[in-house]
Amino acid sequence: MTYSMVELIRTKRDNGELSADELAWIIREYTADALPDYQLSALLMAFVLNGMSPAELAAWTEAMLHSGDVLDLAAVDKPKIDKHSTGGVGDKISIPLVPVVAACGVAVPMMSGRGLGHTGGTLDKLESIPGFSVDIAPGAFVEQLNDVGMVMVGASETLVPADRRIYSLRDATGTVPSIPLISSSIMAKKLAEDLDGLLLDVKFGSGATMKNIQDAKKLANTMVGTGHTYGTPVTAMLTNMDQPLGAAVGNANEIQESIAILKGDGPDDVRELTLLFASEMLMMAGEADIEVARSLAEAAITSGRALEVMARVTELQGGDPACIEDPSLLEIAPMEHVIKADRSGWVTACDAYAIGTAAVRLGAGRATKEDTIDPGVGFLIQAKIGDPVVEGQPLAVVSYRDSRKLDSALVAAAGAWSIADVEPPIPDLVLGTVR
Amino acid sequence: MTYSMVELIRTKRDNGELSADELAWIIREYTADALPDYQLSALLMAFVLNGMSPAELAAWTEAMLHSGDVLDLAAVDKPKIDKHSTGGVGDKISIPLVPVVAACGVAVPMMSGRGLGHTGGTLDKLESIPGFSVDIAPGAFVEQLNDVGMVMVGASETLVPADRRIYSLRDATGTVPSIPLISSSIMAKKLAEDLDGLLLDVKFGSGATMKNIQDAKKLANTMVGTGHTYGTPVTAMLTNMDQPLGAAVGNANEIQESIAILKGDGPDDVRELTLLFASEMLMMAGEADIEVARSLAEAAITSGRALEVMARVTELQGGDPACIEDPSLLEIAPMEHVIKADRSGWVTACDAYAIGTAAVRLGAGRATKEDTIDPGVGFLIQAKIGDPVVEGQPLAVVSYRDSRKLDSALVAAAGAWSIADVEPPIPDLVLGTVR
Repeated sequence: MTYSMVELIRTKRDNGELSADELAWIIREYTADALPDYQLSALLMAFVLNGMSPAELAAWTEAMLHSGDVLDLAAVDKPKIDKHSTGGVGDKISIPLVPVVAACGVAVPMMSGRGLGHTGGTLDKLESIPGFSVDIAPGAFVEQLNDVGMVMVGASETLVPADRRIYSLRDATGTVPSIPLISSSIMAKKLAEDLDGLLLDVKFGSGATMKNIQDAKKLANTMVGTGHTYGTPVTAMLTNMDQPLGAAVGNANEIQESIAILKGDGPDDVRELTLLFASEMLMMAGEADIEVARSLAEAAITSGRALEVMARVTELQGGDPACIEDPSLLEIAPMEHVIKADRSGWVTACDAYAIGTAAVRLGAGRATKEDTIDPGVGFLIQAKIGDPVVEGQPLAVVSYRDSRKLDSALVAAAGAWSIADVEPPIPDLVLGTVR
Repeated sequence: MTYSMVELIRTKRDNGELSADELAWIIREYTADALPDYQLSALLMAFVLNGMSPAELAAWTEAMLHSGDVLDLAAVDKPKIDKHSTGGVGDKISIPLVPVVAACGVAVPMMSGRGLGHTGGTLDKLESIPGFSVDIAPGAFVEQLNDVGMVMVGASETLVPADRRIYSLRDATGTVPSIPLISSSIMAKKLAEDLDGLLLDVKFGSGATMKNIQDAKKLANTMVGTGHTYGTPVTAMLTNMDQPLGAAVGNANEIQESIAILKGDGPDDVRELTLLFASEMLMMAGEADIEVARSLAEAAITSGRALEVMARVTELQGGDPACIEDPSLLEIAPMEHVIKADRSGWVTACDAYAIGTAAVRLGAGRATKEDTIDPGVGFLIQAKIGDPVVEGQPLAVVSYRDSRKLDSALVAAAGAWSIADVEPPIPDLVLGTVR
């Protein structure tokens, strides 16, 4: 069956519903280079503004999922559980989390993304470890999962190819923030991984795609619903992204912070999310008691087994395991600038969007897809919401390499911190769970 | 000043307002091939769904108007009045109208379009006269206006070039039906013609872009408002397009019907609109009394002067004036099919959209821009709304050349006519005037 794309666009523009056949045709033709970008971008904008019906969302996700290969992990002899975050600032949770879970006997076939907009990407962070490769031979994938229980790689070229293409078009046409488009993009990729369970970290707040908890809940419900349809258990946790996670925002410094967590150290919020997510993933893997799950995760850290897994994975993926033992070997940019409190009081805001944007301007992220990352630059935050400060006290230390980039970053970071006379309530890190 | 297109798209997507500088930048960059189609099409869909503010519309129209040259008709020694129709089925009014007005001493520098979708185009109709050229040398333009008071040509390559490019993109991306986009497209082109007055025929109904009178009124108000801003008097008449105008729907047959009007003959609705529009245009040209204006228009027909103007223009533009004297010389396709009433009663519908679509399928219009037109095919309608018919009586005679195209056309035309037991009211031809 063949369709007229302009008629399909008109239908969606006029709030009509597209059929499963029509949506599958669009994805097939676009992936085969047979539909022009300008037609798909008009349709995507109509999806953003007019929404998708549940039937349209199901059909679109299904068509994305089958736009390429799906993984066959039948040869993996452990429960296969993955985790995905909708993206935030300072969000390095996957890096300590996956070794903890793997050390507890779970297989995590994690395919991650790169930094986009003001948010960082797990792959960029891992590549700040000298030699670490996020490409892995297809044959080694199952073997490494059976051996150490984790892989951390980029998306395969043949898995959900439609998503890669549609995502770049969305990024360039202002059509990212649509709950059904976000859901289908994430869920198609995760469903292609042949999982036994999936934990979603759905972030809301200034540094997240979803600016408020209502939208985050809708997105969480949508993705959990898609999981049900495919018989894959999905748990979504709604977490706050008004301020960065932890102290480090960058790449190498986020790896240092992640390793600190694996050594039983590091910031409280990063440790807490790591243990919370690890417990949930262990429950999905078969553990019956949430308190037992949590103590298993804690033991993986205190015993040093999680750190061992991280060192072993680094070695298997070509990286230098000495950097895991001694993270001070990771190169941090040589120059430092200190952002200081301009008054005394309590910190009432430490804006994730502003700091994320500033970090991109320093070189820690990409303004365009062609930009290269400087792994050594970034922020080390010294004062977060609820902290008392005195005038002149450091709020953050900026590691930089280029003073013009520093100036541009400081413009973005100006006003990120608010300081007031009254002690504010500390925002909850987790605001709900959708199963 | 340079902008980020994706940020501008996001602003409009989120119901923000774009500045005059931003809109001018978009039109300038797109016309200079510096903006990709896929970004503009996403923005156009956001305009269609979120609308444009009055300030955005004004800025967009101004930027379109100055995307190329504007005409200088200072050397024309008569009032310059043009007419534009938003497009309909069987809408050949310009063809008898312009000679009538020109015969009364007005200059009409008419630049028309080609058929698009289910509607016909004046240029395509004129080209069914052997030799008639819709291109005219720039030097001959003013001379012909001073000589015979009219030119009927295609849009100049250098006048409002942004419109041509944006219009094709809109056509291919389902972004045509937006009142501000339609208004700016029409008004930029007409304001570039250096006019003393403009008559707009804003059609509503099944065969029009505006499906209802409310939208037609909004469009009329928008365009009249733009005229005021530029100090150009604009009158908009709201006319019914639920059924085709006249009997002929095609190209050569519409020229025959137009010439019949110029000979004092032809269908009542075509003659009535011709005289009504001519009177309005003569009022804009300085005539004070509408009844005097109408009798001047009638006299231009009865005296034969309007027909003479048409013959002279045909000759000046390379066509065969014998066809104006004897329109039976125009070639009509050799085969005929008669659509018959399947019951007796009164005709209650004669759907313009269905008949327009059927005419395109016969070859009278284009399904894609690359298609060529067959001037000889078309419909001659025998029964319209309010006509009594008996079973088996002809509703229309179809002239065709290819029986497969006839079959496809008959599928589109099926159900165009409704016949009922009760005599319906005759719809008003004109439902209002906006000045």
